[in-house]
Amino acid sequence: MLNIAIIGVGTVGTSVAQILQDNKDVITARAGCELVPTVGVVSNLDKKRDVNIRLTNDIDSVLNDESIDIVVELMGGVDKPFEVVKKALQNKKAVVTANKALLAYHRYELQDIAADTAFEYEAAVAGGIPIINALRDGLGANHILGIKGIMNGTCNYMLTKMINEGVEYDQILKESQELGYAEADPTFDVGGFDAAHKLLILASIAYGLDAKPEDILIEGIQDISSADINFAKEFNYTIKLLTIAKKVGMEVELRVHPVFISQDEMIAKVDGVMNGVSVIGDKVGETMYYGPGAGGDATASAVIANIIDIARRGKGSPMLGYQIPLESNFTLASADSIQTKYYLRLEVEDKCGVLSQIASILGERNISIETMNQKPLDDDRANLLLSTHVCKEVDIKAALKDLENEKAVKAKPVMIRIDS
Amino acid sequence: MLNIAIIGVGTVGTSVAQILQDNKDVITARAGCELVPTVGVVSNLDKKRDVNIRLTNDIDSVLNDESIDIVVELMGGVDKPFEVVKKALQNKKAVVTANKALLAYHRYELQDIAADTAFEYEAAVAGGIPIINALRDGLGANHILGIKGIMNGTCNYMLTKMINEGVEYDQILKESQELGYAEADPTFDVGGFDAAHKLLILASIAYGLDAKPEDILIEGIQDISSADINFAKEFNYTIKLLTIAKKVGMEVELRVHPVFISQDEMIAKVDGVMNGVSVIGDKVGETMYYGPGAGGDATASAVIANIIDIARRGKGSPMLGYQIPLESNFTLASADSIQTKYYLRLEVEDKCGVLSQIASILGERNISIETMNQKPLDDDRANLLLSTHVCKEVDIKAALKDLENEKAVKAKPVMIRIDS
Repeated sequence: MLNIAIIGVGTVGTSVAQILQDNKDVITARAGCELVPTVGVVSNLDKKRDVNIRLTNDIDSVLNDESIDIVVELMGGVDKPFEVVKKALQNKKAVVTANKALLAYHRYELQDIAADTAFEYEAAVAGGIPIINALRDGLGANHILGIKGIMNGTCNYMLTKMINEGVEYDQILKESQELGYAEADPTFDVGGFDAAHKLLILASIAYGLDAKPEDILIEGIQDISSADINFAKEFNYTIKLLTIAKKVGMEVELRVHPVFISQDEMIAKVDGVMNGVSVIGDKVGETMYYGPGAGGDATASAVIANIIDIARRGKGSPMLGYQIPLESNFTLASADSIQTKYYLRLEVEDKCGVLSQIASILGERNISIETMNQKPLDDDRANLLLSTHVCKEVDIKAALKDLENEKAVKAKPVMIRIDS
Repeated sequence: MLNIAIIGVGTVGTSVAQILQDNKDVITARAGCELVPTVGVVSNLDKKRDVNIRLTNDIDSVLNDESIDIVVELMGGVDKPFEVVKKALQNKKAVVTANKALLAYHRYELQDIAADTAFEYEAAVAGGIPIINALRDGLGANHILGIKGIMNGTCNYMLTKMINEGVEYDQILKESQELGYAEADPTFDVGGFDAAHKLLILASIAYGLDAKPEDILIEGIQDISSADINFAKEFNYTIKLLTIAKKVGMEVELRVHPVFISQDEMIAKVDGVMNGVSVIGDKVGETMYYGPGAGGDATASAVIANIIDIARRGKGSPMLGYQIPLESNFTLASADSIQTKYYLRLEVEDKCGVLSQIASILGERNISIETMNQKPLDDDRANLLLSTHVCKEVDIKAALKDLENEKAVKAKPVMIRIDS
């Protein structure tokens, strides 16, 4: 029997306690022993909660309780849970967390402390999908060449609606907020930061690469319009917010941004609030993992998978191979080193000569145009939509600056990378 | 350091040896120790092989060699590998096998012998996709409500070609044989038997259910024609050979047959030689796993995942919870208890009154028609294509017999189940 303390009894914590009790039969069979949710730690004892376990607001007594084997951290935030997890690990308790922000900043410090105890976080990435399990165990024989993830359900729901129903960004954001799919301040989701936290965790598993959110390229979906979506469709693309890891020699690109991606790719078929992660291994090729990225029960399913794993492997089973880069000398690639195709939307004066001006600005930066569409707007303006051949990120960035300073270009240009 | 013996050095065995050497850096980091392919056992020592390990044809010396920690069985067949694996387990070696036929018949006997040693077989199901890992570990918190798998690449390649290119079965079978995607005697693949072996393995992991191939419903893709495919497309279906496990109360349906499945389902999007497995957990909902189901390197990737796992957990780590049903009193459902929608193709005389005769035969068996198409054939005949509302398998079977005896029906009726 293992005693489990749940720190933070909100939606996920409640599901963890309930599922450990409801599905005790299969969980015991798979774990090899009984897993008992013994106590929940909450800040407000007066709040009604749908759980059948002892509740306390005395977190220290729980962290110091020698009968507690596994601490499940579901508090949210970064600083407070960091202290809690640290103390639990120092007290030789196994720790399971679903806290991606905590891990995005402190996973290496915590793994160091957890050198001789289990520290697991399957639920922190892509909710109910056992992607860490797959990446760490199932694909363990492989060098990971790349990862493409759809790991933010809010963005994917919004983009799917925009693509399928022709709804504009502002309207679908409002709808998503009313449905509870988007927060009142949606920046964390639509700005790509949530997805970036998850990407950093996967990058540690795949590459042993230590990077913080501040170190990597993060762009959100806020500037995408129906004009972009229609252009994408015309050329057999869809638009997804992708988390991308890409091994290029001994460098790894880590980035989160919207991408034009071929409709034929399996990951492009992941729609709505669902999540999907495609992984390319050097030996196995592409495998993809699909499922719910959020929700109390789905997230709790992943938390409990970790608890079962700890029961089977023993509390003192550290992760292996993630303290240092898995292959020596891996470094984070500079965002400027990206080479890909690009899509540009330029609002221009609808008059003679503008097109050649634009083409010449791009040409001077070694950017050659692959396809182009011009669509009239109101007020003697037009949308110039174009895609480029493969070129360098530094060149596109420079060209975008040139274009912004060009008189005939009437609004900030929009750039979206094309998967190629 | 763990010493590994590879019994059978064909395509997969060669890949196992090569990858253990090529990817030694990541594999050692993830396993926590060096994994050394020490010896390969072959029947013909004179055959050239692209491996850099010692080869022998003396299998007994290897099985009795105390320095060998892990035996990888890749011989093929059932009886001989059964003896080899049994002896290896009795000698307290951990065993990894990719042999689905062996497991379809002997997994419970072997797991009994392996009560205190590791016995793993990730590669036996869906090749490089870590589906056993997911089902056993990642989804461990869940009662499994159902599984739908595309686990035979040959069938999926053929059906995809038939659907996308309008090619008839016989032509695409010939092409597949020329490309090496289908065997000279293709029965094992196109008849559904290969997929059935894999389903039985998953049924043990998900339900602890002991069943043999002879116990379950297995139908192949041989009777599917372009008429069926066109009808399916018209109603937004595609046709896939699915392996299905479905929990109905305390019974579990296990079956392999072609299915009309909505094009919108994620599993329906798995095309070509690729495999996919969709799993419904009672808590997590649907997750899906996609990847290559065959190939030397992809299969070896799964074999080595097991070897790494054994290195991490220890040689003496039996699987848990699969010797007995995970929930007590689970039984295999009779194939007659299926209830679903059905598609029928009837070659009938193209004359007045036939339609009402058919409808009346179906009506007498409590089968009501949902959609119907009649397409003229040559010789005063027509294809009558119809789908039913949900009805009972026993009723459809009885109706099919009635229809076969009906004078106006000129060929054996074709029935395909509809996912509903």
